[in-house]
Amino acid sequence: MKSHEIELILIGNELLSGQKQDAHLAYVGRLVSTAGARVEAACVIGDDRKRIAALLRERIACARVVIIAGGLGPTHDDVTREAVADALALPLEFREREWQTILGMFERLGRKADESNRRQAYFPKGSTTIANSGGTAAGFMVEMSDCLVAVLPGPPRELSPMMRDTVLPRIQGIHRRAPLFQVTLRTSGIGESDMTPLVRSIFESFTDFEISSLPHLGGVDIGLTEKNPGSDAARVRRRALEFEASLRAALGHRLFGKGEDTLEAIIGALLTQRSESLAIAESLTGGLIAKHVTDVSGSSRYLLAGVVAYSNESKVALLGVSAAAIEAHGAVSEAVCREMADGARRITGATYGLATTGIAGPTGGTPEKPVGLTYYGVSWEGGADIRRRVFHGERNDVRERVAHATLFLFYARLAGAAI
Amino acid sequence: MKSHEIELILIGNELLSGQKQDAHLAYVGRLVSTAGARVEAACVIGDDRKRIAALLRERIACARVVIIAGGLGPTHDDVTREAVADALALPLEFREREWQTILGMFERLGRKADESNRRQAYFPKGSTTIANSGGTAAGFMVEMSDCLVAVLPGPPRELSPMMRDTVLPRIQGIHRRAPLFQVTLRTSGIGESDMTPLVRSIFESFTDFEISSLPHLGGVDIGLTEKNPGSDAARVRRRALEFEASLRAALGHRLFGKGEDTLEAIIGALLTQRSESLAIAESLTGGLIAKHVTDVSGSSRYLLAGVVAYSNESKVALLGVSAAAIEAHGAVSEAVCREMADGARRITGATYGLATTGIAGPTGGTPEKPVGLTYYGVSWEGGADIRRRVFHGERNDVRERVAHATLFLFYARLAGAAI
Repeated sequence: MKSHEIELILIGNELLSGQKQDAHLAYVGRLVSTAGARVEAACVIGDDRKRIAALLRERIACARVVIIAGGLGPTHDDVTREAVADALALPLEFREREWQTILGMFERLGRKADESNRRQAYFPKGSTTIANSGGTAAGFMVEMSDCLVAVLPGPPRELSPMMRDTVLPRIQGIHRRAPLFQVTLRTSGIGESDMTPLVRSIFESFTDFEISSLPHLGGVDIGLTEKNPGSDAARVRRRALEFEASLRAALGHRLFGKGEDTLEAIIGALLTQRSESLAIAESLTGGLIAKHVTDVSGSSRYLLAGVVAYSNESKVALLGVSAAAIEAHGAVSEAVCREMADGARRITGATYGLATTGIAGPTGGTPEKPVGLTYYGVSWEGGADIRRRVFHGERNDVRERVAHATLFLFYARLAGAAI
Repeated sequence: MKSHEIELILIGNELLSGQKQDAHLAYVGRLVSTAGARVEAACVIGDDRKRIAALLRERIACARVVIIAGGLGPTHDDVTREAVADALALPLEFREREWQTILGMFERLGRKADESNRRQAYFPKGSTTIANSGGTAAGFMVEMSDCLVAVLPGPPRELSPMMRDTVLPRIQGIHRRAPLFQVTLRTSGIGESDMTPLVRSIFESFTDFEISSLPHLGGVDIGLTEKNPGSDAARVRRRALEFEASLRAALGHRLFGKGEDTLEAIIGALLTQRSESLAIAESLTGGLIAKHVTDVSGSSRYLLAGVVAYSNESKVALLGVSAAAIEAHGAVSEAVCREMADGARRITGATYGLATTGIAGPTGGTPEKPVGLTYYGVSWEGGADIRRRVFHGERNDVRERVAHATLFLFYARLAGAAI
């Protein structure tokens, strides 16, 4: 019995020098953990044949599965293929069929394969190739010393389907285990430190779950993972629902969804259901709220229009904001924010208007109106809810926080919750 | 002499289960490599006291510097402090001064410190604390067996200044080395596979650099890293400029900048310099181009307005697109794209109008107008350049690619380049 389940080896000088940020660990980690297995460690090293071979030999001794990503390309610094062959003491053999696949791929693209691509038709003897529909680098798998070694190319859109369709089923065959119960509950409108006292006793009373709190610019996600895989599935699900109910009692509508739910998707579902519509007037967020709303496929059903009105002139000309209001209160004011939201509704005939106006920074602040000061809100026929808040962080953090605060305020209104 | 320079240990179950994506390796890697040192490996493991201690003991034997991130919080699953003390065989001691700092921080926030926060005032005997201006978890450093061990909290906005201001100067003291020459050249408007034949001979003739090609949704970055640190700095710089000149000869304006340059920042500089202005009309990109343009501080000087016109009605009402053009050609057509760009200029008086219209997917495609089909372009007084292209990928990939293609087309026009 191996002490570690699954380990990853991620290869690339660019990952260590910070020229590229790894995304494979998060992808593979999520994929295998929802399938009931577990990544227990990941190592990142450079494109160095000796080091890769040494590390792999070491990890084979501990892990039941080692997944290696990166370094299968045609160029001279791609040495993963050779390093794996070294570590497993297997010769590389040329596979005519894989070479024909590579040639065919180049032909379809109207290009000629390079001699360097021939390297990609060599595989360790006894390994099974893993087809790559998105590129010339096929992967391979080989079982040795009670360890499954799977080697995949680096580009995420190539690795992802190979991992999902070929490697994951093999892992599930090895572990033969019920998928681990895992759920993410999504909150918004409250920071981690304000949340802690409200939820501590709940977290402490659900000891059958690992509970993690994951703050990001849009809110705080609460991750729930079953501690004892294989325990009574119905009971685990019931306990998770109890946890969710307790959290909802503590946080109200700030617990807005779970899993892949987003504020913009829930807003879209509510608007669609009620046949209501939306228009957006943005100053400091500069199109970011419209971008989030249109991330949702089908948003054309309810988003009538967005206006990015950065200058005073455009606020007046496009949204009908009164020059008098800008004169009297300044562009960053409750009055102008409300007129922007009303204007967005008026010019489009939408049910709701959203608006933001503020100082994103880093420059433009004054003692009375500091960087981060923002008015944001929602208006409807006969009313409006405009909030004032000073947001912290760098320019893009401020903008992202304002966008989420506005979406959250709007969601809460649609859901009939007082916040 | 240790065989490895700097290694990272990143701690957190959430990194292995895919609930959170690590960002520390990229940040620390970039920081230390521009300072002339090198991260040679990184390991990610869970919040497990025994495993952390065992891994640290092993890495101390190889590395000159080990940086540990994460697991210093006040909760029960934060075990890094204890694990490091175990590995180094150092007792933990209570530091009254750090405890007072924590209490003061809570007082300023108008909250009460919890007994659990007391844990954060314990440090391995003989270690130096590293102040944390952004949170309650101070870090610490200790030198043992010719290895500097630095332990930092996980949240990036806490880790970053501690790493930069305290740990990095210590690393520079150890390595006493000239900063490694490193530059990123940024390209757009050409994919990696079309670029390869144009640049292969250049890449092969500059053997004094490690050259990496890093494709992303907006283009391809070319990373250049000096291979032999400590060599003649003036010569390395000259060679890098020669490389850049060769690349420019091969790629023309598709090589648009270096380092932190972005298309939107360069566009902003060109517009500011010429006192020209811009308005944007977006359909499928839904505010994304306006968002990129307003990422630049000071963009209010030239961005007059953006309009997100998702529906046909809003194209007509807000941008003055003719119902006849929509009727005759459909909303996704060259004629409508041109009218959108012209309309954006007309309603704002801007020098240039940008526009996009297309089918982002995943639904909405037809045999004649498939998902990804997009018209995008720029218009000016007396002319326009509207392009047609089918973009590939998922909804958000398509949108990001369209946004970058539009910005690149506009940049090329401003720069007077034919593309």
